[in-house]
Amino acid sequence: MSDSGEFKRDATYIPDRITQDARKPEHGPVEGDLWPVEPGRYRLVAARACPWANRAIIVRGLLGLEDVISMGLCGPTHDDRSWTFDLDPGGRDPVLGYERLQQAYFQRFPDYERGITVPAVVDVRSRGVVTNDYPWITHDLFHEWRDFHRPDAPNLWPDDLREEMDEVMERVYTEVNNGVYRCGFASSQRAYDAAYDRLFTALDWLEERLADRRYLMGDAITEADVRLFTTLARFDAVYHGHFKCNRNKLTEMPVLWAYARDLFQTPGFGDTIDFDQIKTHYYVVHTTINPTQVVPKGPDPSGWLTPHGRERLQRH
Amino acid sequence: MSDSGEFKRDATYIPDRITQDARKPEHGPVEGDLWPVEPGRYRLVAARACPWANRAIIVRGLLGLEDVISMGLCGPTHDDRSWTFDLDPGGRDPVLGYERLQQAYFQRFPDYERGITVPAVVDVRSRGVVTNDYPWITHDLFHEWRDFHRPDAPNLWPDDLREEMDEVMERVYTEVNNGVYRCGFASSQRAYDAAYDRLFTALDWLEERLADRRYLMGDAITEADVRLFTTLARFDAVYHGHFKCNRNKLTEMPVLWAYARDLFQTPGFGDTIDFDQIKTHYYVVHTTINPTQVVPKGPDPSGWLTPHGRERLQRH
Repeated sequence: MSDSGEFKRDATYIPDRITQDARKPEHGPVEGDLWPVEPGRYRLVAARACPWANRAIIVRGLLGLEDVISMGLCGPTHDDRSWTFDLDPGGRDPVLGYERLQQAYFQRFPDYERGITVPAVVDVRSRGVVTNDYPWITHDLFHEWRDFHRPDAPNLWPDDLREEMDEVMERVYTEVNNGVYRCGFASSQRAYDAAYDRLFTALDWLEERLADRRYLMGDAITEADVRLFTTLARFDAVYHGHFKCNRNKLTEMPVLWAYARDLFQTPGFGDTIDFDQIKTHYYVVHTTINPTQVVPKGPDPSGWLTPHGRERLQRH
Repeated sequence: MSDSGEFKRDATYIPDRITQDARKPEHGPVEGDLWPVEPGRYRLVAARACPWANRAIIVRGLLGLEDVISMGLCGPTHDDRSWTFDLDPGGRDPVLGYERLQQAYFQRFPDYERGITVPAVVDVRSRGVVTNDYPWITHDLFHEWRDFHRPDAPNLWPDDLREEMDEVMERVYTEVNNGVYRCGFASSQRAYDAAYDRLFTALDWLEERLADRRYLMGDAITEADVRLFTTLARFDAVYHGHFKCNRNKLTEMPVLWAYARDLFQTPGFGDTIDFDQIKTHYYVVHTTINPTQVVPKGPDPSGWLTPHGRERLQRH
């Protein structure tokens, strides 16, 4: 939190990458260790509640990596210290044997001082965390694990769109994915007002961009859609009320709402969403915003399954 | 607050009544003093933020009593002790000379221990409070001040509908007017869940009741509409998010939303609504619900002025 009450995200993560034969990756920074792609070696630890982890759950599924990278899921709430495996029998992840994700972090870095975040990729052999650097986790699931993708896996990172896609994803990240948090965690009216204006300026831009494109980059789903979807899926359930992102609900932006439903109804997207876990997470964990920890019963989610009519925008 | 976390409203008010010649009123209890109707003698102290005070502002205007009963308006926020006249020049009510409404209560009852609430009717001569018993304030503005109503004043309490109207108003009060508070101030999940179900059961009943009636009691505006309107006007602005009444927005209930717009666009209703004061009141005063006191910028209120199409339900 800055002096002006503005929320600043700690964007420092464990920068390790998992690459083919642990070679230098084609894209992105190498600021940590390199680990080799190896089926069965890694476990993705995620939580259905968390939008950043949701990306990894979706991409793993779209690419058909379920049998290659196993997945553990933490429950929706956590204390100040760690996400926990409270959904598992006995409260322990059956592969890692841990009760708390923190244990995987400490296994590798006994003095780890930053937040214990999901998604985290854990090396099953050493039971230590490999990386929690979420934008590069999904990037590398696509670029580095290609040999293990299912045959009809979508091209989530088309080379010819890379430059424009990076720009779109950057704006979606700063203005929308993180923009909702900037609204919710603003501790001054001035910081909140500025955050609200930035957020809805970006949503208006998206409403316009998607009016004549089925997906953010055109006729096919890409990583950019995954990243926008995880915020939109949470918008009316938590960001609208809990984070005061309330110029309107998502359901009141016709293009974005149809776009979000289109993705929700696509296998691999809506089936990763658990509105109860999402609401419980935000409303129970953020006691500075919701001291009673009461979780709203609304909104009615039935609209997510209504026809979206976006097929007509498909050009081939 | 009960042990189960349920919100219980303190419904004990100063039970004095103002009646014609201070005679026993035709309706309702006489548990306090009787005061005589007298033009220019009383001052209605209200606040645009407060739904209970809003009723009195609307009824005074509909009946044309502006020149007979003066009005003072408190600002939207107050501290633990009192509403204040912070909107007035010098922070004092120009007629009573008070900075705080509490002073009118103490002037008459030096040891007054209950909440200092609006609306309150104050005797200008003695500068002491007469009553803050809001359901009887509006009742008596109609029944006891008839000689001073404007010639074309609406019949807000038609005798032939009195019995049904009392039933409707009772249900509107317990389930809706107070129902939103029961949601917002619930301090346990169980109490909230029950309150939410009660509220939306009642809103569904109203959605059905108003589908073929322009107003709650038929073809003409009555006190019942005034009482429902003041809650509906605040629904999307505060109750939906701040009080977690979020199955849907008012704008998502087509009949109730059209009904609310119809009233809003009727002289004497929408012109009493100040969304900024309403939002500021709830979000700043209730620090147990909103510790940051940040006031949301939304929702966009422009929809209130769109056509409602309810004239077609009018049968004469």
